[in-house]
Amino acid sequence: MVNQRADVGWQSSKSDSSGVSNSGESSKESSRCSTPVLDTDRTDRLRDKMKRRIESGDHWFSLEFFPPRTASGAVNLISRFDRMGSGGPLFIDVTWHPAGDPGSDKETSSMMIASTAVNYCGLESVLHLTCCNQTKEKITAHLNKAKRLGLKNIMALRGDPIGEDWVEEDGGFNYATDLVKHIRCEFDDYFDICVAGYPTGHPEAESYDNDLRHLKEKVDAGAHFIVTQLFFRAETFLRFVKDCRAIGITCPILPGIFPIQGYHSLRQLVKLSKLEVPEEIMQVIEPIKDNDAAIRSYGIQQAVEMCKVLLASGEVPGLHFYTLNREVATIEVLRQLGLWAEDPRRPLPWAVSAHPKRKVEDVRPIFWASRPKSYIYRTQDWDDFPNGRWGNSSSPAFGELTDYYLFYLKSKSPKEALLQMWGEELMNEGSVYEVFTNYITGQTNPSGHKVMCLPWNDDPLAPETNLLKDELEKVNRRGILTINSQPNINGKPSSDPIVGWGPAGGYVFQKAYLEFFTSSENVTALLQVLKKYEPRVNYHIVNVQGKNITNAHEMQPNAVTWGIFPGREIIQPTVVDPVSFMYWKDEAFALWIEQWAKLYEDESPSRMIIQYIHDNYFLVNLVDNDFPLDSCLWQVIEDMFALLDSPRETQEEGSQL
Amino acid sequence: MVNQRADVGWQSSKSDSSGVSNSGESSKESSRCSTPVLDTDRTDRLRDKMKRRIESGDHWFSLEFFPPRTASGAVNLISRFDRMGSGGPLFIDVTWHPAGDPGSDKETSSMMIASTAVNYCGLESVLHLTCCNQTKEKITAHLNKAKRLGLKNIMALRGDPIGEDWVEEDGGFNYATDLVKHIRCEFDDYFDICVAGYPTGHPEAESYDNDLRHLKEKVDAGAHFIVTQLFFRAETFLRFVKDCRAIGITCPILPGIFPIQGYHSLRQLVKLSKLEVPEEIMQVIEPIKDNDAAIRSYGIQQAVEMCKVLLASGEVPGLHFYTLNREVATIEVLRQLGLWAEDPRRPLPWAVSAHPKRKVEDVRPIFWASRPKSYIYRTQDWDDFPNGRWGNSSSPAFGELTDYYLFYLKSKSPKEALLQMWGEELMNEGSVYEVFTNYITGQTNPSGHKVMCLPWNDDPLAPETNLLKDELEKVNRRGILTINSQPNINGKPSSDPIVGWGPAGGYVFQKAYLEFFTSSENVTALLQVLKKYEPRVNYHIVNVQGKNITNAHEMQPNAVTWGIFPGREIIQPTVVDPVSFMYWKDEAFALWIEQWAKLYEDESPSRMIIQYIHDNYFLVNLVDNDFPLDSCLWQVIEDMFALLDSPRETQEEGSQL
Repeated sequence: MVNQRADVGWQSSKSDSSGVSNSGESSKESSRCSTPVLDTDRTDRLRDKMKRRIESGDHWFSLEFFPPRTASGAVNLISRFDRMGSGGPLFIDVTWHPAGDPGSDKETSSMMIASTAVNYCGLESVLHLTCCNQTKEKITAHLNKAKRLGLKNIMALRGDPIGEDWVEEDGGFNYATDLVKHIRCEFDDYFDICVAGYPTGHPEAESYDNDLRHLKEKVDAGAHFIVTQLFFRAETFLRFVKDCRAIGITCPILPGIFPIQGYHSLRQLVKLSKLEVPEEIMQVIEPIKDNDAAIRSYGIQQAVEMCKVLLASGEVPGLHFYTLNREVATIEVLRQLGLWAEDPRRPLPWAVSAHPKRKVEDVRPIFWASRPKSYIYRTQDWDDFPNGRWGNSSSPAFGELTDYYLFYLKSKSPKEALLQMWGEELMNEGSVYEVFTNYITGQTNPSGHKVMCLPWNDDPLAPETNLLKDELEKVNRRGILTINSQPNINGKPSSDPIVGWGPAGGYVFQKAYLEFFTSSENVTALLQVLKKYEPRVNYHIVNVQGKNITNAHEMQPNAVTWGIFPGREIIQPTVVDPVSFMYWKDEAFALWIEQWAKLYEDESPSRMIIQYIHDNYFLVNLVDNDFPLDSCLWQVIEDMFALLDSPRETQEEGSQL
Repeated sequence: MVNQRADVGWQSSKSDSSGVSNSGESSKESSRCSTPVLDTDRTDRLRDKMKRRIESGDHWFSLEFFPPRTASGAVNLISRFDRMGSGGPLFIDVTWHPAGDPGSDKETSSMMIASTAVNYCGLESVLHLTCCNQTKEKITAHLNKAKRLGLKNIMALRGDPIGEDWVEEDGGFNYATDLVKHIRCEFDDYFDICVAGYPTGHPEAESYDNDLRHLKEKVDAGAHFIVTQLFFRAETFLRFVKDCRAIGITCPILPGIFPIQGYHSLRQLVKLSKLEVPEEIMQVIEPIKDNDAAIRSYGIQQAVEMCKVLLASGEVPGLHFYTLNREVATIEVLRQLGLWAEDPRRPLPWAVSAHPKRKVEDVRPIFWASRPKSYIYRTQDWDDFPNGRWGNSSSPAFGELTDYYLFYLKSKSPKEALLQMWGEELMNEGSVYEVFTNYITGQTNPSGHKVMCLPWNDDPLAPETNLLKDELEKVNRRGILTINSQPNINGKPSSDPIVGWGPAGGYVFQKAYLEFFTSSENVTALLQVLKKYEPRVNYHIVNVQGKNITNAHEMQPNAVTWGIFPGREIIQPTVVDPVSFMYWKDEAFALWIEQWAKLYEDESPSRMIIQYIHDNYFLVNLVDNDFPLDSCLWQVIEDMFALLDSPRETQEEGSQL
C-alpha cells in the first residue's frame, strides 16, 4: 500500500486494499481508468480472474454445456444460461462436435452457442476446439471467427479420430499440444487456453506417466489451466494433482465434477469416456436403477461429499461441472457447497455483455430494459460503446431489427402458449387491456392461463416493477398499456436486494419512469395535463409514423438510474435518450405485429384489433425528475382520466394531435 | 414543440421549453450533446446569446475596461474582473491603445488582459482593435494571436490617426469598414464583430447622415452589433436608433452609458470625445465640482434615470457601461436598475474558463478549488478537457508551475501585507498553526492584523467552508493545517445559496473532503486510526519527496461533488484524482517556499521553520464516502489525537513512515 514515486514514473504497489487489480490486458488498455472498473471480472482475462480468486482463497465453479440439437433446444439453452449465469459461474464452456458443423452460423452450432453466451448472456465462455483431422487453415478460420465474435478462451483438444484407421500426419494436428502451439503461434497471447487432464490417464495413452508427460507438454506449449475428465473418488484427483505438481505443472487444475443424474446417462458416459464406476457406487445404484429421483438424490449427495473433500484439500481452487445441459442436480450441489450465489450482485442494473469490445460500456437507454438481447443485437456493429456519458458514443445508429426469428431474440414460448396467454380471439381493444392487466396481476385469464410474458417482456414482472404493481394494474385496466417502468429511488444501499447494483458500500438512485402505449384520445388529454407538471416531468410521445411530441431537449439524454460508490466516479447506467427512443419506437410498434398480430389469420378480427392499436396508439414515456419526492406520474395519469371524465366544455380546445 | 420525423433526418423545432437552443457553432460541433449543456452561455457565440436574450426580453449589461499601466494595476484589474464578473455581465471589452504595445505579451497589454478575462476569469470578452496606420500583416498577426488565446469577439475601430498629416492609403486600412472586411475575409465567420456608433455623429464625419451611412457600411461588411459612444440624453440615443433602423440597420445597438464619476474625468472624456455636456447637467455639476461624493451620487442618479428611459423604450436590449476601471458607480447603477445579479447562479461549483477549447470541460480535481487560475494555467496546453468522466482526458500531464510571478497567479497582497498577516518573525511551528487558525476564525493576530489569505487560498474563507468553521479552528490549533475542505451534502436544491450550482430544479451532492498538512508524527497515528474507517474513508498521504500512502485505487478518481438535474445526464464536476494529486502536491509544497519562506531572509529562523515544515510535513487528503451520514472525518482526527495523547504502550508499533 505504499507507492513510492520515482522520478521516471510510478512503481505501483502489488495489491491495493480496494481489491482492484490492474494486471494484464486491462491495465495496458485503460491506464487512466476511463472505465468504471465496477467489476474487474468484466475487464480481466480469465487467467487473471483465476489468479485473483486463488490469491484471495475464493473458490469458484464453472459449467460445461453441449450444443443443442434443435432450434427450440437452443432457445431453452440460452434461457438456462441466463438462469445458471445468475449463480455466479467463473466461466461456462461449450463442447465441440465435429460431426455437427460446430463452426457454422447455425443456431445450434458450438460457435453460435458460445458466442451467444458471451454476447447476450454476458458469460465468460470457453469454446472447445478439436484439431484431429483438421487442416491448419480450417482451425485458423475457426479461431479467427471466435475472436471476431468476442470469444477469448479456447479449450484445446485433440478430439476423437473419425474412423479406425487414423494415422499421425506430418505437420498436421496429431495432439492437443499441436493445437496449443498453433494458437500461440497464430494468435500470440490473445486466447486463454485450457487443456484436458486425465486423472486416470487418457484411455489411449501408453501409460499414466506417459500421459502426464503429454499434459506437461500441453502446458509448456502455452496452456493456462487444466480441466480434468470426470472421476468418482476425490483421492483419484488429488493424487493426479500431486503427480502433476511433481513433474512441474504449476497452472490451476480444475476437477471435472459429474453429479450422477440417472442410471442410463451414467452408463453412456462411462462407456464413452472408458471409465470404470467404482464398486461402492454401483452397489448403491444398481438396486435403485429404475428410480430416477433416488439416483439423482444419491448423485447429489455423492458429488457434494466428494467436492467437500476436494475443497478442503487446499489443492482445488474451483470445481468444473459436467451439467449435461441440466440444472437441478448441479445447482443443488453448488447450493449445498455454498458456492451458488443466492443473491447475485449485479454490477450494473442491466445484464452486461462479455464481448471485449463492450467492456467499457456502462450506459444504455432504458427502453431495452426488458429486451437486452435485442439491444445488444442492434448495437453489435458499434465500434465504441458509451462510457460515462451516453453522448460520448460515436456510433449512435442502431441496426434494423428484422430478425425476430433469431433464437436469442425469439419468444421463449411457442405459438400455442402465446395464444392461450394473449387470447385465441380478441373482441375489442378492451381484450388487449385485459391481457396487459393480467400480466401485471399474475391472475389467470378467462381461459384459465396466466399471462407470463408480453411481446415487450419475455419474462414475468421484475421484482422492482412489483413495487408498482397496484398502480400499474389500475392504469392498465383503463388502457394505459405499460411496457416499462421503474420507481423513484432516493439513495438506497447498493446492496438492496431489489433495486441494488454495483459494488458494496454505495448508494443507488432512480428517477421514476413510465412507458406505455395509449390511444390518441388519452394523449390529447395527457398533453393538457402535462402542462401543469413542467418542468418536473419530461415526456416523449410518438406514434408509429414518427409524429413526436416532447418537452425535452432533442439531443440531451436524461439520466434515470445512477449510483455513487466509494472511491469511484459516478456511474449512470440508464438514460432516456431522445434519439434512441425513435429507434426503439420502431421496434416497440413492430412487436405488436411481429409477435402478436401474426398469431392470427390475415383479415381476422383479432388481427385487425392489434393492427388498429399499432396504427393509432401512441408510445409515451414519462420521467419524474424530482426523485427525492414521491413519484407524481400516477397523479399525472389520474389527472388525465379526471379530465377525460369531466364534462366536455371544461376540456380545452386545440389538441396538438 | 412538435418534431416531425422526416425520412432524411430531423426537422428540429424552433424553440424548446427547456430553454436550450442549439443554434450556430454549438449545434454543429456537439450534435450528440456530449457536453453537459449546463449553461448555453458557455457554448453559444456572443451574437447567439444576444439573440436569445432579445427573444426572451431579458435585458443585459456589458462593461468596458482599459488596460492598466502597471503590473500591480493588472493584478487589481483581474480581481475586479472576478468581482464584477459575478454580477453577470453578458460580456466585457478591453480597449486597444496603439501606443501601449497592445498586442504584446506584456501583462499590461490589451491582448493579455482580454486573454486573462477569457481564460482565467471565464468572461465573454471583446477585444478592441484599431487599424489606422497598421499593415494588413500586423492586423492579421494580432487576430491570429487573439484566436489562439481563445478570444472570439473583436470591436473593429479605425482608431485615431497618429499625427496631423494622416492621408488615406490605397488598399490600406482607412476606415473601420476596411477592418471589418479584412476580418471577414481572413477569418470567415470565426469572430463576432462589434463596431462603434456615434449618436451625435463622428466628430470627423462630414455630416450626421454621412456618418450613419458609414455605420451602415460597417454593418453590411459583416458586423454583428453596435456599441455607441457615450451620450447624456436618452432621446439622443433613441433618435439615433430610429435613424439607423430607417436606413436598414437591423443588428442590436447598445447604448454606451457613462455614469459621471467626477468633475475632472468628465471634462477629460468630453475633451477626448469632442462631446458637449448638456447645459442642464453642467448647471448641477459646476456648483459641486469639488465634492467628489456629491458628483458621483449625482452621476449615479442621472445614469439610472436615463437607463430607465432607454430600457422602457423597448429599443434597448442591453446597456454598455464605460466603467473607467472603477466599480462603485457602475455597480450601483446596475443594482438600482435590477440588472446586477445579486445571487449569481454558478453553472458549476468552480469558475469556468471561457476559452472555446474548454467549453466541454465539466470535471476538475478538487485540489485546485482555491487556485482555479493556477489549474487553468497548468492545463492550458491540453488538447482535450475531461467531459463527463475525469479519466476521459487524453492529456493528463500538468504543466510546471514555476511562474509564480505571473500576474494572474500572484498573491493580490504585497509583501508587507503578507508579513503583517503571516508574521514578521516566526517563533516555532506553533506560530504557523496560529496563522492558519486566525485565517479560519477571522480574528486578528497579536500584531492586530486579520489573516485574509494563505499561500493556498488567496481569498477569505468560502461561505461553504464557513459551515465547517468550528471544527476547522479546533484542528488547525493542533497542527492539522487545513488548506481545502468541503462538507458532505446529501441532495440540497441546486438553488441553495451556499452550496448550490447548476440549473434550477436539480439537486447537488458532496462527499466530505478534508486536505491538510501535518507532521509525520501525526500521520503515523492517523494511519493507525484510519484502519478503523475502511472502506468508508479514502486517503492519500504524501510528502515532498513523493512518498505516497493510500488505500485508494492508484488510477481511479473518486467523485466528490455531483449534481442531478431535470432532463440531463449526471454532472460530476469535482473529483479526487490520485494522479493529479501528485502534480498538485508539488505545487502545494512549493507554495510554502515560494509564497511564505521567501518573505524572510535566507538562513533566518522564520525561513528555517517554514523550510522545516516543507521538508518534513505530509500533505493528507481524506474523503468520507458515506455522504448521507454525518461526516466522520472530524472523528478520525479526534481519534488520532486521542491515540497521540494515550500512554505510549497502547500505541501500536511498526509505523509505515
